[in-house]
Amino acid sequence: MKILFEISYVGSAYHGFQVQKTLPTVQRTVQTALEKIYGCPLLVSGCSRTDAGVHARRFFLTAEGEICDAPPCEAIPFIAPRYLPDDIAVLSARNVSDDFHVRYDVLYKEYRYFIYNAPHMDPFLSKRAYHFPKPLDEHRMNRAAQYLCKRADFSSYMAKGSDVIDTVREIKYCTVERNGDMITVKIAADGFLYNMVRIISGTLLEVGTGAKNPEEIDEITSSKRRERAGRTLPPDGLYLWKVEYKNPDGAEQNEE
Amino acid sequence: MKILFEISYVGSAYHGFQVQKTLPTVQRTVQTALEKIYGCPLLVSGCSRTDAGVHARRFFLTAEGEICDAPPCEAIPFIAPRYLPDDIAVLSARNVSDDFHVRYDVLYKEYRYFIYNAPHMDPFLSKRAYHFPKPLDEHRMNRAAQYLCKRADFSSYMAKGSDVIDTVREIKYCTVERNGDMITVKIAADGFLYNMVRIISGTLLEVGTGAKNPEEIDEITSSKRRERAGRTLPPDGLYLWKVEYKNPDGAEQNEE
Repeated sequence: MKILFEISYVGSAYHGFQVQKTLPTVQRTVQTALEKIYGCPLLVSGCSRTDAGVHARRFFLTAEGEICDAPPCEAIPFIAPRYLPDDIAVLSARNVSDDFHVRYDVLYKEYRYFIYNAPHMDPFLSKRAYHFPKPLDEHRMNRAAQYLCKRADFSSYMAKGSDVIDTVREIKYCTVERNGDMITVKIAADGFLYNMVRIISGTLLEVGTGAKNPEEIDEITSSKRRERAGRTLPPDGLYLWKVEYKNPDGAEQNEE
Repeated sequence: MKILFEISYVGSAYHGFQVQKTLPTVQRTVQTALEKIYGCPLLVSGCSRTDAGVHARRFFLTAEGEICDAPPCEAIPFIAPRYLPDDIAVLSARNVSDDFHVRYDVLYKEYRYFIYNAPHMDPFLSKRAYHFPKPLDEHRMNRAAQYLCKRADFSSYMAKGSDVIDTVREIKYCTVERNGDMITVKIAADGFLYNMVRIISGTLLEVGTGAKNPEEIDEITSSKRRERAGRTLPPDGLYLWKVEYKNPDGAEQNEE
Protein backbone atom coordinates (compact mmCIF):
# COMPACT_ATOMS: atom_id res chain seq x y z
CA MET A 1 0.00 0.00 0.00
CA LYS A 2 1.24 3.47 -0.92
CA ILE A 3 0.03 6.60 0.83
CA LEU A 4 0.70 10.17 -0.34
CA PHE A 5 1.11 12.79 2.37
CA GLU A 6 1.05 16.54 1.98
CA ILE A 7 3.12 18.15 4.72
CA SER A 8 4.37 21.62 5.70
CA TYR A 9 7.47 22.37 7.75
CA VAL A 10 9.68 25.07 9.17
CA GLY A 11 13.13 23.91 8.09
CA SER A 12 15.28 25.84 10.60
CA ALA A 13 15.89 22.91 12.96
CA TYR A 14 16.62 20.33 10.23
CA HIS A 15 19.52 19.38 8.01
CA GLY A 16 17.23 19.24 5.01
CA PHE A 17 14.67 16.63 4.07
CA GLN A 18 16.77 13.61 3.11
CA VAL A 19 17.96 11.17 5.80
CA GLN A 20 21.59 11.69 6.82
CA LYS A 21 23.58 9.43 9.08
CA THR A 22 23.48 11.31 12.37
CA LEU A 23 21.89 14.71 11.73
CA PRO A 24 18.18 15.42 12.31
CA THR A 25 16.22 15.58 9.05
CA VAL A 26 12.56 16.05 8.17
CA GLN A 27 12.45 12.61 6.55
CA ARG A 28 13.69 10.81 9.65
CA THR A 29 11.33 12.75 11.92
CA VAL A 30 8.29 12.08 9.72
CA GLN A 31 9.22 8.44 9.14
CA THR A 32 9.54 7.80 12.89
CA ALA A 33 6.12 9.40 13.47
CA LEU A 34 4.39 7.52 10.64
CA GLU A 35 5.88 4.17 11.70
CA LYS A 36 4.39 4.72 15.15
CA ILE A 37 1.01 5.66 13.67
CA TYR A 38 0.92 2.72 11.20
CA GLY A 39 2.73 0.24 13.46
CA CYS A 40 5.03 -1.14 10.73
CA PRO A 41 8.30 -0.28 8.95
CA LEU A 42 7.79 2.17 6.06
CA LEU A 43 9.72 3.22 2.99
CA VAL A 44 9.45 7.04 2.84
CA SER A 45 10.26 9.06 -0.32
CA GLY A 46 10.03 12.84 -0.80
CA CYS A 47 9.24 15.04 -3.80
CA SER A 48 12.45 17.04 -3.38
CA ARG A 49 15.70 17.20 -1.43
CA THR A 50 15.48 20.51 0.35
CA ASP A 51 18.69 21.79 1.93
CA ALA A 52 19.42 22.50 5.59
CA GLY A 53 17.31 25.41 6.84
CA VAL A 54 15.01 25.52 3.79
CA HIS A 55 11.25 25.59 4.51
CA ALA A 56 8.26 23.95 2.83
CA ARG A 57 4.77 25.40 2.64
CA ARG A 58 3.73 22.30 0.67
CA PHE A 59 5.83 19.15 0.41
CA PHE A 60 4.74 15.72 -0.77
CA LEU A 61 6.03 12.36 0.37
CA THR A 62 4.91 8.77 0.01
CA ALA A 63 5.10 5.95 2.52
CA GLU A 64 4.97 2.31 1.49
CA GLY A 65 4.70 -0.74 3.70
CA GLU A 66 2.64 -3.68 4.89
CA ILE A 67 0.00 -1.36 6.27
CA CYS A 68 -2.96 -3.10 7.87
CA ASP A 69 -5.47 -1.97 10.44
CA ALA A 70 -4.41 1.65 9.84
CA PRO A 71 -6.43 4.72 10.81
CA PRO A 72 -8.37 6.19 7.83
CA CYS A 73 -6.45 8.72 5.74
CA GLU A 74 -8.80 11.56 6.74
CA ALA A 75 -7.84 11.06 10.39
CA ILE A 76 -4.08 11.27 9.88
CA PRO A 77 -3.76 15.12 9.97
CA PHE A 78 -5.53 15.05 13.34
CA ILE A 79 -3.52 12.14 14.76
CA ALA A 80 -0.10 13.23 13.47
CA PRO A 81 0.43 16.23 15.83
CA ARG A 82 0.69 13.78 18.76
CA TYR A 83 3.72 12.16 17.08
CA LEU A 84 5.37 15.14 15.41
CA PRO A 85 7.15 18.27 16.69
CA ASP A 86 5.37 21.63 16.23
CA ASP A 87 7.48 22.59 13.22
CA ILE A 88 6.06 19.82 10.98
CA ALA A 89 2.37 19.34 10.12
CA VAL A 90 0.56 16.75 8.00
CA LEU A 91 -2.03 18.58 5.87
CA SER A 92 -3.56 15.60 4.07
CA ALA A 93 -3.11 11.91 3.35
CA ARG A 94 -4.55 9.78 0.56
CA ASN A 95 -4.06 6.37 -1.02
CA VAL A 96 -2.30 6.33 -4.37
CA SER A 97 -1.61 3.60 -6.92
CA ASP A 98 1.71 1.75 -6.59
CA ASP A 99 3.00 3.19 -9.87
CA PHE A 100 2.67 6.79 -8.66
CA HIS A 101 6.15 8.25 -8.07
CA VAL A 102 6.33 11.25 -5.73
CA ARG A 103 9.47 12.63 -7.40
CA TYR A 104 9.42 11.54 -11.05
CA ASP A 105 5.73 12.36 -11.54
CA VAL A 106 6.19 16.03 -10.65
CA LEU A 107 5.12 18.31 -13.51
CA TYR A 108 6.63 21.41 -11.92
CA LYS A 109 7.48 22.87 -8.54
CA GLU A 110 7.28 26.46 -7.39
CA TYR A 111 9.81 27.87 -4.94
CA ARG A 112 9.62 31.30 -3.34
CA TYR A 113 12.51 33.31 -1.99
CA PHE A 114 11.67 36.07 0.52
CA ILE A 115 13.95 39.11 0.84
CA TYR A 116 13.13 41.47 3.68
CA ASN A 117 14.31 44.80 2.31
CA ALA A 118 14.26 47.26 5.22
CA PRO A 119 16.99 49.10 7.17
CA HIS A 120 16.81 46.68 10.10
CA MET A 121 15.58 43.15 10.51
CA ASP A 122 12.15 42.29 11.91
CA PRO A 123 12.83 39.72 14.68
CA PHE A 124 9.61 37.88 13.72
CA LEU A 125 11.19 37.14 10.31
CA SER A 126 14.46 35.82 11.69
CA LYS A 127 15.22 32.47 9.94
CA ARG A 128 12.07 33.03 7.83
CA ALA A 129 13.37 35.57 5.30
CA TYR A 130 16.71 36.96 4.13
CA HIS A 131 17.47 40.47 5.34
CA PHE A 132 18.96 42.88 2.81
CA PRO A 133 19.20 46.45 4.19
CA LYS A 134 20.15 48.46 1.08
CA PRO A 135 17.53 49.68 -1.45
CA LEU A 136 16.43 47.19 -4.11
CA ASP A 137 14.53 48.03 -7.31
CA GLU A 138 12.02 45.22 -7.68
CA HIS A 139 10.95 46.41 -11.15
CA ARG A 140 14.49 45.93 -12.47
CA MET A 141 14.62 42.54 -10.75
CA ASN A 142 11.35 41.51 -12.36
CA ARG A 143 12.55 42.60 -15.82
CA ALA A 144 15.69 40.50 -15.32
CA ALA A 145 13.58 37.53 -14.18
CA GLN A 146 11.79 37.44 -17.55
CA TYR A 147 15.05 36.49 -19.29
CA LEU A 148 15.05 33.28 -17.25
CA CYS A 149 11.64 32.05 -18.42
CA LYS A 150 12.70 29.46 -20.99
CA ARG A 151 14.12 26.01 -21.53
CA ALA A 152 17.90 26.30 -21.20
CA ASP A 153 21.09 24.99 -19.71
CA PHE A 154 21.06 26.68 -16.31
CA SER A 155 24.48 25.46 -15.14
CA SER A 156 25.54 29.08 -14.45
CA TYR A 157 23.09 28.88 -11.53
CA MET A 158 24.23 25.50 -10.19
CA ALA A 159 26.45 25.17 -7.12
CA LYS A 160 29.74 23.37 -7.62
CA GLY A 161 29.97 19.81 -6.39
CA SER A 162 26.79 18.59 -8.07
CA ASP A 163 27.10 15.39 -10.11
CA VAL A 164 24.08 16.15 -12.31
CA ILE A 165 24.88 15.62 -16.02
CA ASP A 166 21.80 17.03 -17.74
CA THR A 167 21.66 20.67 -16.68
CA VAL A 168 18.82 21.69 -19.00
CA ARG A 169 15.64 22.78 -17.20
CA GLU A 170 12.48 24.62 -18.17
CA ILE A 171 11.57 27.65 -16.06
CA LYS A 172 7.81 28.14 -16.48
CA TYR A 173 7.64 31.48 -14.71
CA CYS A 174 9.84 33.72 -12.63
CA THR A 175 8.54 36.95 -11.09
CA VAL A 176 9.65 39.49 -8.53
CA GLU A 177 7.09 41.45 -6.51
CA ARG A 178 7.21 43.83 -3.57
CA ASN A 179 4.66 44.01 -0.80
CA GLY A 180 5.77 46.71 1.64
CA ASP A 181 9.26 45.79 2.80
CA MET A 182 9.02 42.20 1.52
CA ILE A 183 10.31 41.24 -1.92
CA THR A 184 9.20 37.84 -3.19
CA VAL A 185 10.91 35.90 -5.96
CA LYS A 186 8.58 33.21 -7.37
CA ILE A 187 10.10 30.62 -9.64
CA ALA A 188 8.52 27.50 -11.14
CA ALA A 189 10.36 24.86 -13.16
CA ASP A 190 10.15 21.22 -14.17
CA GLY A 191 13.25 20.62 -12.07
CA PHE A 192 15.94 22.53 -10.20
CA LEU A 193 19.71 22.24 -10.12
CA TYR A 194 21.63 22.28 -6.85
CA ASN A 195 21.10 25.69 -5.12
CA MET A 196 19.52 27.06 -8.32
CA VAL A 197 16.83 29.20 -6.66
CA ARG A 198 19.27 30.65 -4.15
CA ILE A 199 21.80 31.52 -6.90
CA ILE A 200 19.12 32.98 -9.20
CA SER A 201 17.81 35.06 -6.27
CA GLY A 202 21.36 36.24 -5.54
CA THR A 203 21.76 37.21 -9.20
CA LEU A 204 18.44 39.09 -9.27
CA LEU A 205 19.48 40.85 -6.05
CA GLU A 206 22.55 42.22 -7.85
CA VAL A 207 20.23 43.52 -10.56
CA GLY A 208 18.12 45.11 -7.81
CA THR A 209 21.10 47.02 -6.38
CA GLY A 210 22.18 48.18 -9.83
CA ALA A 211 25.37 46.10 -9.88
CA LYS A 212 24.05 44.11 -12.86
CA ASN A 213 21.72 45.06 -15.72
CA PRO A 214 18.55 43.04 -16.47
CA GLU A 215 19.84 42.51 -20.02
CA GLU A 216 22.96 40.74 -18.69
CA ILE A 217 20.94 37.71 -17.63
CA ASP A 218 20.93 36.08 -21.08
CA GLU A 219 24.69 36.42 -21.26
CA ILE A 220 25.14 34.96 -17.75
CA THR A 221 22.91 32.01 -18.63
CA SER A 222 24.63 31.25 -21.93
CA SER A 223 28.13 31.58 -20.41
CA LYS A 224 27.48 28.39 -18.34
CA ARG A 225 29.96 29.78 -15.82
CA ARG A 226 28.93 29.81 -12.16
CA GLU A 227 31.19 32.78 -11.41
CA ARG A 228 29.20 35.03 -13.77
CA ALA A 229 26.05 34.67 -11.66
CA GLY A 230 25.43 36.24 -8.24
CA ARG A 231 26.16 34.71 -4.87
CA THR A 232 24.15 31.93 -3.23
CA LEU A 233 21.67 33.52 -0.80
CA PRO A 234 21.20 31.78 2.58
CA PRO A 235 18.57 29.03 3.01
CA ASP A 236 16.44 31.01 5.52
CA GLY A 237 14.45 32.83 2.81
CA LEU A 238 13.70 29.77 0.66
CA TYR A 239 10.35 27.93 0.64
CA LEU A 240 9.11 25.04 -1.47
CA TRP A 241 5.67 26.53 -2.16
CA LYS A 242 3.73 24.38 -4.63
CA VAL A 243 4.08 21.00 -6.34
CA GLU A 244 2.03 20.10 -9.41
CA TYR A 245 1.80 16.47 -10.54
CA LYS A 246 1.53 15.23 -14.11
CA ASN A 247 -1.58 13.26 -13.39
CA PRO A 248 -3.29 14.50 -10.25
CA ASP A 249 -6.19 12.14 -10.95
CA GLY A 250 -3.70 9.27 -11.06
CA ALA A 251 -2.63 10.24 -7.58
CA GLU A 252 -6.22 10.16 -6.44
CA GLN A 253 -7.74 7.32 -8.48
CA ASN A 254 -6.92 4.64 -5.95
CA GLU A 255 -8.57 6.47 -3.07
CA GLU A 256 -10.79 4.17 -1.07
CA MET B 1 21.10 61.00 30.60
CA LYS B 2 17.92 59.07 29.77
CA ILE B 3 17.42 57.35 26.43
CA LEU B 4 14.12 55.89 25.21
CA PHE B 5 14.34 52.75 23.07
CA GLU B 6 11.63 51.23 20.93
CA ILE B 7 12.22 47.50 20.60
CA SER B 8 10.46 44.44 19.14
CA TYR B 9 10.90 40.86 20.29
CA VAL B 10 9.77 37.28 19.84
CA GLY B 11 9.11 36.23 23.43
CA SER B 12 9.28 32.44 23.04
CA ALA B 13 12.81 32.05 24.42
CA TYR B 14 12.33 34.41 27.40
CA HIS B 15 10.78 34.30 30.84
CA GLY B 16 9.07 37.62 30.22
CA PHE B 17 10.55 41.09 30.21
CA GLN B 18 11.41 41.73 33.86
CA VAL B 19 14.75 40.52 35.26
CA GLN B 20 14.50 37.32 37.30
CA LYS B 21 17.25 35.77 39.36
CA THR B 22 18.47 33.03 37.04
CA LEU B 23 16.09 32.81 34.08
CA PRO B 24 16.77 34.53 30.75
CA THR B 25 14.63 37.64 30.30
CA VAL B 26 14.35 40.32 27.63
CA GLN B 27 15.40 43.00 30.12
CA ARG B 28 18.61 41.22 31.08
CA THR B 29 19.49 40.50 27.42
CA VAL B 30 18.87 44.09 26.32
CA GLN B 31 20.63 45.57 29.34
CA THR B 32 23.75 43.46 28.71
CA ALA B 33 23.78 44.58 25.05
CA LEU B 34 23.24 48.28 25.85
CA GLU B 35 25.91 48.28 28.56
CA LYS B 36 28.37 46.96 26.00
CA ILE B 37 27.31 49.60 23.45
CA TYR B 38 27.41 52.51 25.93
CA GLY B 39 30.33 51.21 27.96
CA CYS B 40 28.80 51.96 31.38
CA PRO B 41 26.31 50.48 33.86
CA LEU B 42 22.69 51.33 33.01
CA LEU B 43 19.39 51.36 34.83
CA VAL B 44 16.86 49.80 32.44
CA SER B 45 13.07 50.15 32.88
CA GLY B 46 10.31 48.76 30.65
CA CYS B 47 6.80 50.00 29.77
CA SER B 48 5.21 46.72 30.81
CA ARG B 49 5.94 43.38 32.44
CA THR B 50 5.15 40.89 29.72
CA ASP B 51 4.88 37.25 30.81
CA ALA B 52 6.99 34.30 29.71
CA GLY B 53 6.41 33.52 26.02
CA VAL B 54 4.53 36.78 25.29
CA HIS B 55 5.72 38.75 22.25
CA ALA B 56 6.10 42.47 21.58
CA ARG B 57 5.68 44.18 18.22
CA ARG B 58 6.43 47.49 19.94
CA PHE B 59 7.89 47.78 23.43
CA PHE B 60 9.45 50.85 25.06
CA LEU B 61 12.23 50.94 27.60
CA THR B 62 14.49 53.61 29.02
CA ALA B 63 18.14 53.34 29.97
CA GLU B 64 19.76 55.79 32.39
CA GLY B 65 23.41 56.12 33.25
CA GLU B 66 26.60 58.17 33.08
CA ILE B 67 26.62 57.98 29.31
CA CYS B 68 29.48 59.80 27.65
CA ASP B 69 31.10 59.35 24.26
CA ALA B 70 28.11 57.29 23.12
CA PRO B 71 27.22 56.57 19.49
CA PRO B 72 24.44 58.87 18.20
CA CYS B 73 20.88 57.64 18.80
CA GLU B 74 20.22 57.22 15.05
CA ALA B 75 23.05 54.69 14.85
CA ILE B 76 21.82 52.43 17.66
CA PRO B 77 19.35 50.34 15.59
CA PHE B 78 22.21 49.52 13.21
CA ILE B 79 24.78 48.79 15.93
CA ALA B 80 22.47 46.79 18.23
CA PRO B 81 22.17 43.62 16.06
CA ARG B 82 25.86 42.90 16.75
CA TYR B 83 25.10 42.69 20.48
CA LEU B 84 21.61 41.17 20.47
CA PRO B 85 20.21 37.77 19.50
CA ASP B 86 18.03 37.59 16.36
CA ASP B 87 14.80 37.53 18.35
CA ILE B 88 15.20 41.10 19.70
CA ALA B 89 15.58 44.23 17.55
CA VAL B 90 16.02 47.90 18.45
CA LEU B 91 13.76 49.96 16.17
CA SER B 92 14.65 53.44 17.40
CA ALA B 93 16.43 55.35 20.16
CA ARG B 94 16.03 58.95 21.30
CA ASN B 95 16.97 61.19 24.18
CA VAL B 96 14.19 62.04 26.63
CA SER B 97 13.96 64.38 29.59
CA ASP B 98 14.77 62.93 32.99
CA ASP B 99 11.17 63.32 34.19
CA PHE B 100 9.78 61.10 31.43
CA HIS B 101 8.64 57.78 32.92
CA VAL B 102 8.38 54.86 30.52
CA ARG B 103 5.68 53.12 32.57
CA TYR B 104 3.70 55.84 34.39
CA ASP B 105 3.49 58.12 31.36
CA VAL B 106 1.69 55.54 29.23
CA LEU B 107 -1.70 56.84 28.03
CA TYR B 108 -2.82 53.44 26.78
CA LYS B 109 -1.43 50.19 25.43
CA GLU B 110 -2.88 47.94 22.76
CA TYR B 111 -2.46 44.19 23.00
CA ARG B 112 -3.47 41.71 20.30
CA TYR B 113 -4.32 38.07 20.80
CA PHE B 114 -4.12 35.82 17.72
CA ILE B 115 -6.27 32.69 17.50
CA TYR B 116 -5.55 30.41 14.54
CA ASN B 117 -8.94 28.85 13.90
CA ALA B 118 -8.40 25.99 11.44
CA PRO B 119 -8.66 22.19 11.72
CA HIS B 120 -4.90 21.74 12.03
CA MET B 121 -2.09 24.01 13.07
CA ASP B 122 0.14 25.82 10.59
CA PRO B 123 3.72 24.99 11.70
CA PHE B 124 4.82 28.52 10.74
CA LEU B 125 2.49 29.85 13.45
CA SER B 126 3.75 27.55 16.20
CA LYS B 127 4.50 29.70 19.31
CA ARG B 128 3.19 32.72 17.36
CA ALA B 129 -0.58 32.14 17.65
CA TYR B 130 -2.97 29.99 19.70
CA HIS B 131 -4.50 27.11 17.77
CA PHE B 132 -8.21 26.45 18.28
CA PRO B 133 -9.54 23.78 15.88
CA LYS B 134 -13.32 24.02 16.44
CA PRO B 135 -15.46 26.62 14.63
CA LEU B 136 -15.62 30.10 16.18
CA ASP B 137 -18.17 32.81 15.36
CA GLU B 138 -16.14 36.02 15.29
CA HIS B 139 -19.28 38.18 14.96
CA ARG B 140 -20.60 36.87 18.29
CA MET B 141 -17.17 37.41 19.80
CA ASN B 142 -17.06 40.98 18.54
CA ARG B 143 -20.54 41.70 19.93
CA ALA B 144 -19.39 40.38 23.30
CA ALA B 145 -16.25 42.50 23.14
CA GLN B 146 -18.33 45.70 23.00
CA TYR B 147 -19.61 45.07 26.55
CA LEU B 148 -16.02 45.39 27.76
CA CYS B 149 -15.44 48.89 26.36
CA LYS B 150 -15.85 50.95 29.53
CA ARG B 151 -14.27 52.02 32.79
CA ALA B 152 -14.94 49.22 35.28
CA ASP B 153 -13.57 46.89 37.91
CA PHE B 154 -12.16 44.11 35.74
CA SER B 155 -11.14 41.78 38.59
CA SER B 156 -13.18 38.93 37.00
CA TYR B 157 -10.44 38.90 34.36
CA MET B 158 -7.47 38.99 36.73
CA ALA B 159 -5.41 35.90 37.55
CA LYS B 160 -5.23 34.92 41.19
CA GLY B 161 -2.04 35.75 43.04
CA SER B 162 -1.89 39.40 41.98
CA ASP B 163 -1.38 41.93 44.77
CA VAL B 164 -2.91 44.84 42.85
CA ILE B 165 -5.46 46.74 44.97
CA ASP B 166 -7.08 49.09 42.45
CA THR B 167 -8.63 46.79 39.84
CA VAL B 168 -10.49 49.52 37.93
CA ARG B 169 -9.26 50.01 34.36
CA GLU B 170 -10.58 51.75 31.27
CA ILE B 171 -10.83 49.66 28.12
CA LYS B 172 -10.76 52.12 25.21
CA TYR B 173 -11.58 49.60 22.52
CA CYS B 174 -11.93 45.86 22.13
CA THR B 175 -12.65 44.27 18.75
CA VAL B 176 -12.62 40.80 17.21
CA GLU B 177 -11.92 40.35 13.50
CA ARG B 178 -11.34 37.40 11.21
CA ASN B 179 -8.92 37.35 8.29
CA GLY B 180 -9.08 33.89 6.71
CA ASP B 181 -8.28 31.38 9.45
CA MET B 182 -6.86 34.01 11.80
CA ILE B 183 -8.99 35.65 14.46
CA THR B 184 -7.51 38.76 16.07
CA VAL B 185 -8.63 40.20 19.41
CA LYS B 186 -7.48 43.83 19.75
CA ILE B 187 -7.74 45.43 23.15
CA ALA B 188 -6.53 48.82 24.32
CA ALA B 189 -6.66 50.07 27.90
CA ASP B 190 -5.00 52.57 30.23
CA GLY B 191 -3.66 49.58 32.16
CA PHE B 192 -4.02 45.84 32.39
CA LEU B 193 -4.47 43.46 35.32
CA TYR B 194 -2.44 40.27 35.61
CA ASN B 195 -3.28 37.97 32.63
CA MET B 196 -6.23 40.23 31.74
CA VAL B 197 -5.91 39.98 27.94
CA ARG B 198 -5.46 36.20 28.04
CA ILE B 199 -8.50 35.76 30.30
CA ILE B 200 -10.66 38.16 28.24
CA SER B 201 -9.59 36.30 25.06
CA GLY B 202 -10.48 32.99 26.74
CA THR B 203 -13.89 34.41 27.69
CA LEU B 204 -14.54 35.71 24.16
CA LEU B 205 -13.51 32.30 22.82
CA GLU B 206 -16.30 30.70 24.85
CA VAL B 207 -18.70 33.18 23.28
CA GLY B 208 -17.32 32.16 19.89
CA THR B 209 -18.06 28.48 20.48
CA GLY B 210 -21.56 29.24 21.73
CA ALA B 211 -20.83 28.19 25.33
CA LYS B 212 -21.49 31.76 26.52
CA ASN B 213 -23.77 34.51 25.20
CA PRO B 214 -22.44 37.99 24.31
CA GLU B 215 -24.93 39.48 26.76
CA GLU B 216 -23.40 37.52 29.65
CA ILE B 217 -20.26 39.67 29.60
CA ASP B 218 -21.77 42.47 31.70
CA GLU B 219 -22.80 39.96 34.32
CA ILE B 220 -19.36 38.31 34.34
CA THR B 221 -17.69 41.70 34.73
CA SER B 222 -19.94 42.90 37.54
CA SER B 223 -19.68 39.55 39.42
CA LYS B 224 -15.97 40.29 40.14
CA ARG B 225 -15.48 36.54 40.31
CA ARG B 226 -12.60 35.05 38.32
CA GLU B 227 -14.39 31.69 37.96
CA ARG B 228 -17.24 33.30 35.97
CA ALA B 229 -14.84 34.27 33.17
CA GLY B 230 -13.23 31.91 30.64
CA ARG B 231 -9.89 30.20 30.97
CA THR B 232 -6.51 31.87 30.57
CA LEU B 233 -5.29 31.31 27.00
CA PRO B 234 -1.58 30.46 26.54
CA PRO B 235 1.01 33.24 26.09
CA ASP B 236 1.97 32.19 22.52
CA GLY B 237 -0.84 34.21 20.90
CA LEU B 238 -0.29 37.44 22.86
CA TYR B 239 1.52 40.51 21.50
CA LEU B 240 2.07 43.94 23.00
CA TRP B 241 1.24 45.87 19.82
CA LYS B 242 1.17 49.61 20.47
CA VAL B 243 2.04 52.01 23.30
CA GLU B 244 0.74 55.59 23.34
CA TYR B 245 2.31 58.12 25.69
CA LYS B 246 0.52 60.99 27.44
CA ASN B 247 2.90 63.54 26.07
CA PRO B 248 4.73 62.21 23.02
CA ASP B 249 6.31 65.63 22.53
CA GLY B 250 7.60 65.45 26.07
CA ALA B 251 9.34 62.25 25.14
CA GLU B 252 10.90 63.96 22.15
CA GLN B 253 11.51 67.52 23.40
CA ASN B 254 14.95 66.76 24.74
CA GLU B 255 16.22 65.29 21.50
CA GLU B 256 19.59 66.67 20.55
